[in-house]
Amino acid sequence: MNPVDIITKKRDGGEHTATELYFLVRGMVNDAIPDYQLAAWAMAVFFRGMSDAEATQLTLAMAESGDTLDLHDAVAPGVLIVDKHSSGGVGDKTTLAVGPIVAACGLPVGKMSGRGLSFSGGTIDKLESIRGWSPDLSEERFRRQLREIGLVIAGQTADLAPADKRLYALRDVTGTVPSLPLIAASIMSKKLAAGADAIVLDVKCGRGAFMEKLDDARALARLMVAIGAGAGRSVTALITGMEQPLGNAVGNALEVREAIATLHSHGPADFQALVERVSAEMLLLGDPACPSLDGARQQVQKAIGSGAAFEKLVAFVATQGGDPAQVYHPERLPSAPVQRTLVAQSSGYIHAIDAREVGLAVVEMGGGRKKKGDAIDFGVGAVCQAKVGARVSAGDPLCAVYAADEASASVALSRLGAAWRVEEGTADPLPVILDRIVGG
Amino acid sequence: MNPVDIITKKRDGGEHTATELYFLVRGMVNDAIPDYQLAAWAMAVFFRGMSDAEATQLTLAMAESGDTLDLHDAVAPGVLIVDKHSSGGVGDKTTLAVGPIVAACGLPVGKMSGRGLSFSGGTIDKLESIRGWSPDLSEERFRRQLREIGLVIAGQTADLAPADKRLYALRDVTGTVPSLPLIAASIMSKKLAAGADAIVLDVKCGRGAFMEKLDDARALARLMVAIGAGAGRSVTALITGMEQPLGNAVGNALEVREAIATLHSHGPADFQALVERVSAEMLLLGDPACPSLDGARQQVQKAIGSGAAFEKLVAFVATQGGDPAQVYHPERLPSAPVQRTLVAQSSGYIHAIDAREVGLAVVEMGGGRKKKGDAIDFGVGAVCQAKVGARVSAGDPLCAVYAADEASASVALSRLGAAWRVEEGTADPLPVILDRIVGG
Repeated sequence: MNPVDIITKKRDGGEHTATELYFLVRGMVNDAIPDYQLAAWAMAVFFRGMSDAEATQLTLAMAESGDTLDLHDAVAPGVLIVDKHSSGGVGDKTTLAVGPIVAACGLPVGKMSGRGLSFSGGTIDKLESIRGWSPDLSEERFRRQLREIGLVIAGQTADLAPADKRLYALRDVTGTVPSLPLIAASIMSKKLAAGADAIVLDVKCGRGAFMEKLDDARALARLMVAIGAGAGRSVTALITGMEQPLGNAVGNALEVREAIATLHSHGPADFQALVERVSAEMLLLGDPACPSLDGARQQVQKAIGSGAAFEKLVAFVATQGGDPAQVYHPERLPSAPVQRTLVAQSSGYIHAIDAREVGLAVVEMGGGRKKKGDAIDFGVGAVCQAKVGARVSAGDPLCAVYAADEASASVALSRLGAAWRVEEGTADPLPVILDRIVGG
Repeated sequence: MNPVDIITKKRDGGEHTATELYFLVRGMVNDAIPDYQLAAWAMAVFFRGMSDAEATQLTLAMAESGDTLDLHDAVAPGVLIVDKHSSGGVGDKTTLAVGPIVAACGLPVGKMSGRGLSFSGGTIDKLESIRGWSPDLSEERFRRQLREIGLVIAGQTADLAPADKRLYALRDVTGTVPSLPLIAASIMSKKLAAGADAIVLDVKCGRGAFMEKLDDARALARLMVAIGAGAGRSVTALITGMEQPLGNAVGNALEVREAIATLHSHGPADFQALVERVSAEMLLLGDPACPSLDGARQQVQKAIGSGAAFEKLVAFVATQGGDPAQVYHPERLPSAPVQRTLVAQSSGYIHAIDAREVGLAVVEMGGGRKKKGDAIDFGVGAVCQAKVGARVSAGDPLCAVYAADEASASVALSRLGAAWRVEEGTADPLPVILDRIVGG
């Protein structure tokens, strides 16, 4: 088989066979196919797309390209391994709350998470704002913790889907990131390799997400659900709004605090709703005894109300070396020294908060990475005081800014000032859940 | 400037600025831009195309990427440097006859030519079937010969358009060869770098050419004429037929013989007509005294009829170290030992001769290269005895085969047998000149 023939076939609108896709993926892993051929192929895929069958085969080939986990020996017999994935957004600390809730409901959650890049944060970074907490676990410790606590969040220790690693790095520098089948295969291959029987996908949509248009987000969600079905997995995809930041807090320690508040039922309305919904969807997929989405939601609320979810977070943090005192007393989490407030310049209704700008302002303050390996200042960030739909008067607070020094606070305030759009005339609050797509 | 932004712009249908194209081309030459980014960009260009202005800027940037020649000091004052280019085809020995004719008419021809690859032969290979003839000239010898003889055909000695070399090699392995602006820029950049004031393009079209469809050939010709205009050069493009082999002979020494016969007015009708037409077009572009295409054609016929063109070939061959005796006595050129004849299996009219198959059969016999650096057997080849439109009876000769041994002759005969389509019902002879496109 010749890579040029495969490129040419896709270029001319052809459909790849499974054999061709496995050949390509093998070539990604053993370096038999050079970067320039993969790059040309990826660009051809960008233009020509892929059928569901092709995307499924590509995903399976990538999932099988390295280690694959089977966590069933670390959970009770008959229990499914349910994973969740968010496509990433500004203020997205969902996993921090969903993990403890679902685990408290008796469904084990063993997740591998990533770090943040560009305007979108990463779960591991957020958890690292807790003193001592570590994502580095051996596979054996991962399994033991999953068995004993029912909740693990770790960095990628196993060599999962190495083909995806190579292809993703290449797409990043060749303008081929925004290809739906390549995005879907990248996400789903890692979930399959990590051993998920069922997956809840949170596909973010809007200015603060990688997918800005609802149609694109729907198409991506539909494709991932189809890939799941083709791979014999149950997948539920939620399409959720990311025009404005999710919840109020953006910034690592600030987001941990907000997640903790949410486990006490005191989260911002949009974030509390999303956390409960994602948790319920996971229970519905993973717990054979769960009767319905409403039933699942009741379980979730009970786990929160009883304090079981919060206690699960404490146990999880402690087991991974973190300081439980910071969970019990979130005010002890890192906090930036300079606090300033963005206020409304005029009276009116908040029509928009540009989530991407908020995310970038926090990165600029040191709360995120501009490039791989940058250090993170856990204490900096922004906390929205009023979100889209709210009525504000001139001088009312819009956003609290936590910065390392006055200079960076000033820069952030002026950038954030441009992110809030206050106008006359009412504005509706933005919905959180935009759509739900489930496997047939 | 960031290569990813340039790729993304083209991917999304944007038009490159001259600055962006010069940045890309500089990156091709100094290796600042890696192959994978160039490959992704080339694929985006394949899908999105380029405006005439973009293609012109790309061509100019590539032409200026290495050495550029100025041959005016080697010709009389006021004389233009006229080059010709053929997009390549089966049996295309046009330069071998056109060069001596045009030079004999007083217009100097100093050409750099290439070697053959795949089914299409190369001028240098053909000339090398003459004992002693060499394409390797210093720039100084090139200029002296141009001044003294008026005719030089050499390999590429100067480092012309190195950006094109890198990009072409990359396109060859990434499925991005058939992009009109990239093809046009590749051809035209080399002609501009070689110092042509005016260019006659012979764009081949049909089964035996790289461009199979007339519309594609027209679009390519139109684009190259536009690039020429944008670069301040006069360009005339002929679109010529390449469904069946050009002339009768395919194979190196056999084609040299046919070119010599053409200089004696005894060429096959289609080839004789094309040679005279291309020669006349060159005179029309390059000779300020040339009144019209008809006037140019008379000059051409006079140069042939008087023997001046043939004598020019002799002088040219001798000056580049070749044996003039083989030009005076073409039967002394290399000839393969085994001669067999393909005969018609049934009576009828020849409806088609698949030029590509004929070309590939000759390559298979050793007359061309499957890969760079392969040695060539100059004496092998095929000579058509009857072309499209001819009436044949069963048993009539269709093609003479010249092979190194019986085995390879048998293989060639069976392959060639499938290339001729003889059917009942008359068939028209194929036209040679399909269209002509000149600058505005």
